[in-house]
Amino acid sequence: MELIEQANQDALCRLLSADPVLIDVIPASEAIPALKNHMILHSGPPIEWADMCGPMQGAIAGIAKFEGWATSLEDAVQKAVAGAFEFHPNHHFDAVGPMTGMTTISQPLMVVENRKFGNRAYCALNEGLGKVMRFGGNDDEVLARLAWLRDDFGPAFGKALRSGDGIPLKHLVARGLTMGDEMHQRNVACSGLILRELAPALARTSTDNEALAKALAFIGGNDQFFLNVAMAMGKSIMDPVRNIEGSTIVTAMSRNGTDFGIRVSGTGDQWFTAPVEMPEGFYFPGFTEADANPDMGDSTIIETIGLGGFAMGAAPAVAGFVGAGAASDASSFTRTMSEITTGENPEWTIPGMDYLGVPTGIDIRMVLETGLAPTINTGIAHKEPGIGQVGAGVVRAPIKCFEQALVAFAESVGVK
Amino acid sequence: MELIEQANQDALCRLLSADPVLIDVIPASEAIPALKNHMILHSGPPIEWADMCGPMQGAIAGIAKFEGWATSLEDAVQKAVAGAFEFHPNHHFDAVGPMTGMTTISQPLMVVENRKFGNRAYCALNEGLGKVMRFGGNDDEVLARLAWLRDDFGPAFGKALRSGDGIPLKHLVARGLTMGDEMHQRNVACSGLILRELAPALARTSTDNEALAKALAFIGGNDQFFLNVAMAMGKSIMDPVRNIEGSTIVTAMSRNGTDFGIRVSGTGDQWFTAPVEMPEGFYFPGFTEADANPDMGDSTIIETIGLGGFAMGAAPAVAGFVGAGAASDASSFTRTMSEITTGENPEWTIPGMDYLGVPTGIDIRMVLETGLAPTINTGIAHKEPGIGQVGAGVVRAPIKCFEQALVAFAESVGVK
Repeated sequence: MELIEQANQDALCRLLSADPVLIDVIPASEAIPALKNHMILHSGPPIEWADMCGPMQGAIAGIAKFEGWATSLEDAVQKAVAGAFEFHPNHHFDAVGPMTGMTTISQPLMVVENRKFGNRAYCALNEGLGKVMRFGGNDDEVLARLAWLRDDFGPAFGKALRSGDGIPLKHLVARGLTMGDEMHQRNVACSGLILRELAPALARTSTDNEALAKALAFIGGNDQFFLNVAMAMGKSIMDPVRNIEGSTIVTAMSRNGTDFGIRVSGTGDQWFTAPVEMPEGFYFPGFTEADANPDMGDSTIIETIGLGGFAMGAAPAVAGFVGAGAASDASSFTRTMSEITTGENPEWTIPGMDYLGVPTGIDIRMVLETGLAPTINTGIAHKEPGIGQVGAGVVRAPIKCFEQALVAFAESVGVK
Repeated sequence: MELIEQANQDALCRLLSADPVLIDVIPASEAIPALKNHMILHSGPPIEWADMCGPMQGAIAGIAKFEGWATSLEDAVQKAVAGAFEFHPNHHFDAVGPMTGMTTISQPLMVVENRKFGNRAYCALNEGLGKVMRFGGNDDEVLARLAWLRDDFGPAFGKALRSGDGIPLKHLVARGLTMGDEMHQRNVACSGLILRELAPALARTSTDNEALAKALAFIGGNDQFFLNVAMAMGKSIMDPVRNIEGSTIVTAMSRNGTDFGIRVSGTGDQWFTAPVEMPEGFYFPGFTEADANPDMGDSTIIETIGLGGFAMGAAPAVAGFVGAGAASDASSFTRTMSEITTGENPEWTIPGMDYLGVPTGIDIRMVLETGLAPTINTGIAHKEPGIGQVGAGVVRAPIKCFEQALVAFAESVGVK
């Protein structure tokens, strides 16, 4: 027992001492040399075509067409059924992706380096709101935006970052928490803060002011621009926490729209999965729960580092948006999550809760002792391919994942 | 009595229906044609040289040198003593200015138009933090920055604004309130939001990317950039509320470092003044209350429209910064101010207080009935000329101003 406590303190120490810095935007082929043609990385634990949900299949059809591996969406689906594509989780390649989480060879990926440990993590650029590939969108408008991100915006963003020493994220997130962000369903403050850091470098490295204006407007017009940065940051923070012998700390939570999966430090890279649950929340006009796809995406890495649902107390405006009750009740979510975490983050604090640190380091033992599953703030996708986001809500990680993990953990330390 | 209620409802209606839009930056000589050489507008109610506090005299020496009306700071002081300059309040010329509030012929002024009523209000650009003229700074560094604002930044900012339809401020401030700003001592959110609006237009209208990068970095590096925008907005909102017969609503609160002055709708443009009080708060390292100048500046127009100290509940991080107690107590300031105001602003709400509207429309009768003076969040200047900001704190408007105002109001409606 004492060894577990020590291992978990070690895990928490690694987690809290991370120093994530956004340093570059590069093509996925450079970031992940193992990526080849016809290889598609997706969110969540491993899954094959036949088991994928509607929006995931829709995104795959879209990205295959985008990469030139299919002549049409229909052709892409036929090829997918015939086994023409290879599917792997982003998490297996130092990457994360929101919702459907498509990562393929030509896409630009943001690079976050954890300067404390030297590791890097990757995430694609946020496409904005509305009809987008991460929610299963795949029409010409969606693909044209991806092309612009690949050919114009991504390279300009990367050039700007390379002209300086990168953008340190730890302090930026700390400020965001004092400005009502929880970094999962609300990133309006951090998106503005990163624009403040980035805009001068974008101007200095640009030679086309119309393209520059378009890039600045794209960042400025997207309240969730920072989400994907936060995800790469989360992955870069958690990866060095993996594989600590005897630690019961969760190192990843993720979902592919069919299954929810978690990884635990002491059991290495093994996934513990269970059917994913349906978010409870609010729907956009014209949509209801009958339209909703179950929970999806690698973005739960945000909760794994103590933000998102765990930092709800910092973001009273989110409580209403995700249908989680009165704004003044937001802090109760944070207090509840502190019952399943190892410590508080002294650098990420919530002013309205008298500078309480966000609850950090989910311990699978505490989840099972209390019966409190991690609370996740999430977007809701339409269950059919090609439609997009229909709402936002709160979802719980399935307890079954934690039960399986504890059994495997017990075996790993010689307990039957 | 019923007539007073009706007049105050009319005042509140004008206040809440305002539509302030930041539309331009132009030289003061264009904005205020009555401005001539050797004319200096200052913050607060009227005051002459001999009665001015140290930082105000320091700022006047600096601005006289800046305008070329004196060869040195000493020469400027001699000329001021000899009566070479004409002093008037900003408020008499549709303008406001922070702290010392210097407005002279060549300075660039931001223009906020209240599109509901067609009136315009003006405020100089925020100089940033540290040694600045608004806190009485007057050395070469301070004057060089003013020259850059006049010759480079101001014209570029104006050109960018004129290329579009202006930046509507009402919704922007509403968002800022959900992001921890109270718009007086904390403007970090709104400064980022306005950069998001402005950056694309700055890029489109710029021909020198190094100058553009400098301008973007200046806005992005100044958490109080929005303060001066908020002040011009406040003035543009309150001016149409003046001169409503029978209204006991405060239309301006302002201080010149010696006196605090208020104006009340029903008594027109008359000032009711009393000696200004000393803020209570926190001092920067190396400074104490012994260094402090009493309260100063036109920035209390912010509280007059229901922000600043009145919106403290939106900004728990400010409570600590200004030494006003625990962050979790911030909402009590807002609740207290609702005891002296006519209504709540349904468009400017505080998520953490379950979307309570900010208390708006200070009624001099309620101030005197409750004995609760308006709470103001303020910066603290050093009492000697040329030094600058030494802290931040909370100050109360002197009750004596409200007593005088009520006597004059009673006389105006025929009550002895």
